[in-house]
Amino acid sequence: MQDELIRARTAAHIANRLHRTDKDRALLAMGEHIHLAADAILEANSRDLERAQAAGEPTHRLDRLRLDESRMEAMVEGLHQVMALSDPVGEVMSAWKQPNGLHMEQIRVPFGVIGIIYEARPNVTVDAAGLTVKTGNAVVLRGGKEAFETNLALTAALRSGLEQAGLPPDLVIMLTDTDRRSVDALIRARTLVDLVIPRGGASLIRHVVEHATVPIIETGVGNCHVYVDAQANLDVALDILINSKTQRPSVCNAAETLLVHTSVADAFLPKVSRQLATLGVELRLDERSLSIVQHDAPDIVRANNVSPMVAIATLEDYATEFLALILAVKVVESLDEAIDHIGRYGTGHSEAIVTEDDQAAREFLTRVDAAAVYHNASTRFTDGFEFGFGAEIGISTQKLHARGPMGLRELTSYKYLIRGTGQIRS
Amino acid sequence: MQDELIRARTAAHIANRLHRTDKDRALLAMGEHIHLAADAILEANSRDLERAQAAGEPTHRLDRLRLDESRMEAMVEGLHQVMALSDPVGEVMSAWKQPNGLHMEQIRVPFGVIGIIYEARPNVTVDAAGLTVKTGNAVVLRGGKEAFETNLALTAALRSGLEQAGLPPDLVIMLTDTDRRSVDALIRARTLVDLVIPRGGASLIRHVVEHATVPIIETGVGNCHVYVDAQANLDVALDILINSKTQRPSVCNAAETLLVHTSVADAFLPKVSRQLATLGVELRLDERSLSIVQHDAPDIVRANNVSPMVAIATLEDYATEFLALILAVKVVESLDEAIDHIGRYGTGHSEAIVTEDDQAAREFLTRVDAAAVYHNASTRFTDGFEFGFGAEIGISTQKLHARGPMGLRELTSYKYLIRGTGQIRS
Repeated sequence: MQDELIRARTAAHIANRLHRTDKDRALLAMGEHIHLAADAILEANSRDLERAQAAGEPTHRLDRLRLDESRMEAMVEGLHQVMALSDPVGEVMSAWKQPNGLHMEQIRVPFGVIGIIYEARPNVTVDAAGLTVKTGNAVVLRGGKEAFETNLALTAALRSGLEQAGLPPDLVIMLTDTDRRSVDALIRARTLVDLVIPRGGASLIRHVVEHATVPIIETGVGNCHVYVDAQANLDVALDILINSKTQRPSVCNAAETLLVHTSVADAFLPKVSRQLATLGVELRLDERSLSIVQHDAPDIVRANNVSPMVAIATLEDYATEFLALILAVKVVESLDEAIDHIGRYGTGHSEAIVTEDDQAAREFLTRVDAAAVYHNASTRFTDGFEFGFGAEIGISTQKLHARGPMGLRELTSYKYLIRGTGQIRS
Repeated sequence: MQDELIRARTAAHIANRLHRTDKDRALLAMGEHIHLAADAILEANSRDLERAQAAGEPTHRLDRLRLDESRMEAMVEGLHQVMALSDPVGEVMSAWKQPNGLHMEQIRVPFGVIGIIYEARPNVTVDAAGLTVKTGNAVVLRGGKEAFETNLALTAALRSGLEQAGLPPDLVIMLTDTDRRSVDALIRARTLVDLVIPRGGASLIRHVVEHATVPIIETGVGNCHVYVDAQANLDVALDILINSKTQRPSVCNAAETLLVHTSVADAFLPKVSRQLATLGVELRLDERSLSIVQHDAPDIVRANNVSPMVAIATLEDYATEFLALILAVKVVESLDEAIDHIGRYGTGHSEAIVTEDDQAAREFLTRVDAAAVYHNASTRFTDGFEFGFGAEIGISTQKLHARGPMGLRELTSYKYLIRGTGQIRS
C-alpha cells in the first residue's frame, strides 16, 4: 500500500496547482469513460451481486449494491453537477496588512491525499472521486468487499477519464486489499495521508477513531430528536415528526426520539401514535406517554397483543440510533428537561424544536449542541444538497474542522502567504 | 478524572451562553486574583524550583519554570489583552435562504471542553485559561510535573476570579495527577472532551497522536527552510537567514536548513558562514557548500580544527529540527529542487523564499505545502501576535481545522441554525 500512497501523494502535488477548467474537463471525461465502460461495469456488478447473493446477504444490501442504467446515469449526472459548482481552491479567506508592512493572505488549498473508507454502495466511489478531483485532492478509496469488482471497474473508468484529460490517473486510487489491515494501514499512514473520512456503520467508525493516527472526520451517527414544545402548532408538529421519523428511517438524520412537553402530551400523543401505527412504526414509550396512549388511543396498544408495536422505553432505547421504524417517546416537564435529555443522549447531529414561541425557539437553538438545530422544520434536511452545497462527502458529527454536511469547501484546508520586503523579527 | 471532566462539561454548558461582557469581567477578575495570590504563587514556584534544582534539571528548564514579579505581571497583562479582543462566539459565518423558505445560519460556537497538555512553562496555565474563557469553553489543564505547585496556585487564583465574576470556577480545571495515565485518560475521554491540544516536545506530541481518540490539533514541530533564490537580493537574504536561524533558535519557527541556488552559492555562502560563525552557529554542509566555504572562507573551516563548527550534512540532518544553533546547508540546482527538498523534509510549518523574481516567488508560495509560506520575510513571524491575532494558543502543523498560528477563532467550532415554518422533506 505504501507504494499506492506515494503515487497518490505525487499526483496530489500536481493537482494542487490545477485550474478549475482542467479539473472540470477531467470530471467531464470521467463521466464519459463511465459511459464507455458501462458494459464492463455492469458485468462486474453482476458478479459482485451473484457472490453477495450466494453469501446470503439480505435484500436491502443487495439493493444498495445493485447498479443499472439509471443508477449509472445518476453517477455521471453527479459528476456534471460537481463541474457546475465553483472551485473553493485559491479562494482568499482573509487578507490584511501588518503594521510592519507584511502582506498577509489566508487562502484555501487542497488537503493533499484524502482517504475514504466506505461500505457497500458503489456510487460513493464516483461521488468521492468527483468531489476530491474538483478540490485538487488525490483520493485513496477503500471500498467494501461486496462491491469489490464494481468498484475496480468504476475506478478504471475514472482513471481513464483523468488520463484523457491530461491529469494524473493516480488522483483516484482504489485499494485492492479489502481486509481490515488495509483500513489500518490507511488510517496510520502519517505524512502520506492528510485526512481520512470513514463512511459507514458505527462499528467501522469506532474502529477508525480507535486506531487512526492520521486526522479523521467522524461521520454519520445520528441519534436525533424532535421536541414538541408547549406552544407548538400540533399540525406542524405532526408533519415534522412523521417526516423526520418515516420519510427515510435508515439514514442518520432521521429522528429516533420524540420529546413532548407535558402540557400538549394529551392532545398530541394519541394523534401521532395512531398515524405512526398506520405507518408501521413501533413505539418505545415512557410511563406517562404509555398511559396517555392506553387511555386515548387504546387501538394502538391493543395492536401490541398481536405484534409488539408498543413497549416501555428503556434508557438504552433513548441512547439508540434505531435506523428503523422504531420511535422512543418521552414526556418532559419543561424545555430545560428536553434540552438536558438531548444533551445526555444526542450525538450532536440534528435536533428540532416545534414551537410558536420565539423565546423557546431561541433558547433551544442556542443551547442545543448539535451540527444542525431546527426550528419548525424536519431533521431530514441535514444534507449537503438540501443545504444548497450542491454536493456532499458526508455529515460530520465532530466539532473539529467541519460540522454537519460537508461539501467542497470542507475538503479544503488553508495556508497563509506572507509577502514582505525583507522584514525580520526584532 | 471522570469526575473532573464532568464538572468541566457542566461548566461548559453554562459558558456556552455567556455574553462577552460577562467573560471579560471574569478575565479581569482572574487577573486581580493573580495579584491577590501573588505571594502564594511565588512561594509555590520556589518550592517547584527547589525540587527541580535538586533533581538536577538544566538551567534553561529552571529558567522556563521561574516566576517573578515581572513574569506575573506579563501574565495578567496577557489576560487584559485577551479582554480587548472581540469575541468570535456568536459570529454569523454565513447566512442564506433556501428555495423552500428555510433560513440557514452558520454561527460560531465554543467547542465545549478543551484539554491542554503542556510542559514546564507556567504562563501557559494563565494564557490557556484566558483564551478558553474568552471563547466560552471550559479548559482541562494537564501541566508538567516540574511546575505542579505553581500551576495549582495559579489555577486556584484563576478559579477565585471566575467565582467572583459569577462564572463557574470549573471552567478552569487543573488535573492533579501528573503521570502519563492522566494524559491518556484525557485524550481518550470521548463525549466528555471535545478537543485536545498538546503543546510540548516531539515525544509528547507523538504519544498523543498515537493514543488519542478525542480530536486533537497537533502543534509545534517545525523543520523550517530559507531558500535563497537565483534572483535573491543577497543582503536581504543574509538578514532573513540570520534572523530566522539565530533570533530565537529554540522555537518552532526558527529555520533549520538553508537552501541556496547554485548560481548565488559562491557569492552568498562565504558571507553567511562567516557571520554565522561569529554567532556560534554550527554548520552541516553538503559537499558543494563545504567546498565553497573551504575555498572562500577558509577561516571558518579552520575553526573546525578547534571546535566542530563545520561538518558534512547527513540526510538525517536535513530531517532534524535542531532547535539549537545548528544550520544544515544545501546548494540546489533549481527552484524545483528547493521545493522538492522542502516537500521531502519539511514539517509544513514555515518556509521562506528570498528572491526579487516574482514568478519564482509565486511558484514557491503556490507549491510549498506549509502553514505559512514567506516571500522576503523571516520565518520567525509565524506567531499569533505577529499575525495580529492578539493571542495564540499554539501553532498547528496539521491541516485539519486550523493551520499555523491559532488565536481565538480557532478555539471555536460552528453550528447551523435552521428556521422554518413547518418544512418537511419530500
